[in-house]
Amino acid sequence: MRFRLDVRYSDYDTKEHVNNAVYLTYFEMARARAWLEEIAGSTDFPFVVAEATVRYRSQARLGDPLDITIWTSEVRTRAWVWQYRIVDARDERLVAEGSTVQVMFDYETRRPMPIPEELRERLAAMREPAPAVR
Amino acid sequence: MRFRLDVRYSDYDTKEHVNNAVYLTYFEMARARAWLEEIAGSTDFPFVVAEATVRYRSQARLGDPLDITIWTSEVRTRAWVWQYRIVDARDERLVAEGSTVQVMFDYETRRPMPIPEELRERLAAMREPAPAVR
Amino acid sequence: MRFRLDVRYSDYDTKEHVNNAVYLTYFEMARARAWLEEIAGSTDFPFVVAEATVRYRSQARLGDPLDITIWTSEVRTRAWVWQYRIVDARDERLVAEGSTVQVMFDYETRRPMPIPEELRERLAAMREPAPAVR
Amino acid sequence: MRFRLDVRYSDYDTKEHVNNAVYLTYFEMARARAWLEEIAGSTDFPFVVAEATVRYRSQARLGDPLDITIWTSEVRTRAWVWQYRIVDARDERLVAEGSTVQVMFDYETRRPMPIPEELRERLAAMREPAPAVR
Repeated sequence: MRFRLDVRYSDYDTKEHVNNAVYLTYFEMARARAWLEEIAGSTDFPFVVAEATVRYRSQARLGDPLDITIWTSEVRTRAWVWQYRIVDARDERLVAEGSTVQVMFDYETRRPMPIPEELRERLAAMREPAPAVR
Repeated sequence: MRFRLDVRYSDYDTKEHVNNAVYLTYFEMARARAWLEEIAGSTDFPFVVAEATVRYRSQARLGDPLDITIWTSEVRTRAWVWQYRIVDARDERLVAEGSTVQVMFDYETRRPMPIPEELRERLAAMREPAPAVR
Repeated sequence: MRFRLDVRYSDYDTKEHVNNAVYLTYFEMARARAWLEEIAGSTDFPFVVAEATVRYRSQARLGDPLDITIWTSEVRTRAWVWQYRIVDARDERLVAEGSTVQVMFDYETRRPMPIPEELRERLAAMREPAPAVR
Repeated sequence: MRFRLDVRYSDYDTKEHVNNAVYLTYFEMARARAWLEEIAGSTDFPFVVAEATVRYRSQARLGDPLDITIWTSEVRTRAWVWQYRIVDARDERLVAEGSTVQVMFDYETRRPMPIPEELRERLAAMREPAPAVR
């Protein structure tokens, strides 16, 4: 899925670009929205984020309209990988990309657990979109 | 009590000064530290913040060392007021001041409740410090 | 003007409600949007925030849809006051309200300056909306 | 170098642990301190962060005292890699680790540039500390 990020003035730092740490918050916003609208709805599938990577490609400057895309690139037994791409919505200029690894987690035993089949199918359905044509 | 604030680079915005919203986080840091070291220790006195005011007096610019002071200005039956003053530690220049109103709160009944005598005394002991002499 | 706030998961703290400092960021989001859409467009009217107050009325809990309203309550010679109201969009329950004082500011002389007539008119046009009828 | 992180209450999210995005802010705090105290002092060596990775190993819960260590693992022609390790200061339990890639950057030509010899030496001197013995 792809949607417009609601960038806040406080996201920018003294260099007049989005601060590097804020990108993980943008990724989290994408996860929350994908989870709500494409994956789980009100069903609870507990997971933890085990790893996150951001590659900064160009600056997101004051006022740049940013679109984020999230998709699934891999589904393993107990974990899956989400990919993210953030672009300037005006010209598809790549601003940042990255990924996070999620592990299905049983909060009672505090151990990883297999991904339920129902979730596996929905995750797999979140495919990488074709690139926007300008 | 007075202590040095650990200002983070991400606290600054594009104007190269501490963003206005961050001051409420600084106030919260002062409450947490006062609570731990001067008031409650490990005792739990549940309260909610009912109101907060910040007056911005001068800019906190990149690298300015900031000291915050917190003290009690008023203790009522169910609520008390804390005052805050943030200065440039080098010359006592006033950067911001403000206050918050706390209400003693019973999370079970979800209603305000009287401040216990033990807490009342400790709050009253947090007096405004004499101004620093340069 | 009134609009839906894009609440982020990181806005919540351990009590599962929006952290008290985040409300000043919500106020800033309202200022930015009002400024862009109702006041200045691309015209630059430099100002500083001199004071901010938040009154916390009820909790904004995980998933609560929040609407913010901003309006002008006072226009003086060199300063004006904006008021804010945040409600649960489902039932108009009051979550928080507050105000900020803005001072027209000449960044070259670093002194307050009179509000230009053009800005004065646009500020005055931002009137308090009639309360929503349920 | 290793130092105690000044964790803020607002760093925690509803799960009562430090929010995943905050770790990049902790890394940034380590860079700022290393830069000031071990690398550059007041000398300006302009760089950009090109990539960041965090691996979350265990939760940082409310009140856990956190120590961060930063060291250089690689110095290339135009870029270098910093590593980070965050532990519970009480028992050296690993909380998170990660890395960032920095690129020496000429802000005038907006292109990468070679790392000056003086900086190269100081970066190389930031070696991985021996693990703490309990």
